[in-house]
Amino acid sequence: MSETKKPDLIIVGSVGIDTIETPAAKRPNILGGSASYACASASFFCRPGMVGVVGTDFGKEYMEVFNSFHIDLEGLQIEEGETFRWSGVYEQNMDNRRTLSTDLNVFADFNPTLPETYKQCPFVFLANIAPALQHAVLDQIQKPRLVIADTMDLWIDISREELVSLIARVDILTINESESRHLTGLHNLIDAGQAMLRMGPTHIMLKKGEHGSMLFSEDGIFLLPAYPVSELHDPTGAGDTFAGGMAGYLAHLQSTDPSDIRKAMAYGSVLASFGVESFSLDRLGQITRIDIEERAESYVKMLRIA
Amino acid sequence: MSETKKPDLIIVGSVGIDTIETPAAKRPNILGGSASYACASASFFCRPGMVGVVGTDFGKEYMEVFNSFHIDLEGLQIEEGETFRWSGVYEQNMDNRRTLSTDLNVFADFNPTLPETYKQCPFVFLANIAPALQHAVLDQIQKPRLVIADTMDLWIDISREELVSLIARVDILTINESESRHLTGLHNLIDAGQAMLRMGPTHIMLKKGEHGSMLFSEDGIFLLPAYPVSELHDPTGAGDTFAGGMAGYLAHLQSTDPSDIRKAMAYGSVLASFGVESFSLDRLGQITRIDIEERAESYVKMLRIA
Repeated sequence: MSETKKPDLIIVGSVGIDTIETPAAKRPNILGGSASYACASASFFCRPGMVGVVGTDFGKEYMEVFNSFHIDLEGLQIEEGETFRWSGVYEQNMDNRRTLSTDLNVFADFNPTLPETYKQCPFVFLANIAPALQHAVLDQIQKPRLVIADTMDLWIDISREELVSLIARVDILTINESESRHLTGLHNLIDAGQAMLRMGPTHIMLKKGEHGSMLFSEDGIFLLPAYPVSELHDPTGAGDTFAGGMAGYLAHLQSTDPSDIRKAMAYGSVLASFGVESFSLDRLGQITRIDIEERAESYVKMLRIA
Repeated sequence: MSETKKPDLIIVGSVGIDTIETPAAKRPNILGGSASYACASASFFCRPGMVGVVGTDFGKEYMEVFNSFHIDLEGLQIEEGETFRWSGVYEQNMDNRRTLSTDLNVFADFNPTLPETYKQCPFVFLANIAPALQHAVLDQIQKPRLVIADTMDLWIDISREELVSLIARVDILTINESESRHLTGLHNLIDAGQAMLRMGPTHIMLKKGEHGSMLFSEDGIFLLPAYPVSELHDPTGAGDTFAGGMAGYLAHLQSTDPSDIRKAMAYGSVLASFGVESFSLDRLGQITRIDIEERAESYVKMLRIA
């Protein structure tokens, strides 16, 4: 894949340096952030362009990781100051995660300015980041054809209005169970899914982690169990990896077709299952498209009723 | 279906009178027990024969419910004393259940004696009940061809040895997530599934409630999301309804074929989705095979990737 090719998919999100502790290990200063996971995952299917910001402290070794995935970095701004940092700890069995610290640093004043080549790209994934920044990126895309957006509890709490107006501009909203209940006030997931469809998107992609995902649309409901993971080492970024893989697959096909969206979710689940087998982007950096196709094939067998 | 036809499937389990409280309603003295739910569910596909015990206080109205499902009751013993009683309360959102009281009553001295017509039946579902009673029933079956067994945490705690020797005699073990972790000491479900296969059964059917089910066998893993329920009124007996429907479908086909087991699980999920729409066997009493086939058809659509 040529480095000068225009990106097929624009991904905005956080880029950061994480310190993560699991019951088995502690890994300080590893590459993280929603845009990092999503771009790496999408890169197996298309050329993603990353929109984000890092500080002048952002090490060359991290840039080399991005380059190894052939991520277009023209949209990655480098600003005076420190890179976004996050640290968290997973409790026994990885069932619960506690955030220890969050330092926005250069993200506090992030003002995304898209390169010209990015503005014509019709496929956009607004990964988890403040809704105002998601709006700002979308405003600069000339003719968006498929807009996927993710969010988190924090924005439902502190930026509900901006989030709701963003959701109205989105084709596929990805959201997890507790966030969907928080956003809609509805406990039953079918009720919550229907309520979110009425907010604007044609598709609601409900993420249930190890329990899989559900897609709501006017065509009804699609149910997808997660690819079962036996080597869980770090669940950080699994949702970003899932959505990034899904977005990358659709951008590759240049498709918004409902049946391609279902297939894209299956690829997203496969990518996420690889991603959690190691910290940071380590495992994604070891696999090839062939590994992905092999796992996708065994996955389809696991889902076959007859 | 003629009342004098020999049963196609023997189901042993509890038969009891429940008092259930949910956030929305309280229902005293309703028909319950694992054998009741399982037999009612199986009855849509075959003629189940119920093995269990009730006291002389067991009302005619409950017997009429069993008759309405055309359950063979020759194996249901009536003993001097009171029927098994259970009461429980579901907390907000039905996510947690607390047992308020359990009175074994006539179940304390239950000694199952199978009618002659039952002993030749090759399809057996040992629903949740003490492992010693599951053994006693299985001992009386002349040539078992497919034995499905369910269990619960209590037996893992107080009758582990009898349970382990039972599991070695079983073809399909049905067990939920926490029970499988409790039984094997392994947190990862794939590891737990493999460990339980080594205990004897050719299939382990892991029940994850609203999150679906997983089937482990030498053919690999089968993943089945649950049919999504929008009208959840009482989850009691959902697992029994699932397994009873599955067993009934296999007994109807007289099949132990792996692909039929997958289909049987899908029917089990459909039956369970109806069952939880109301208390006791109320909803199952309202539906027909046509309703089941309609829901099964829409379910298959929800599971179709492309």
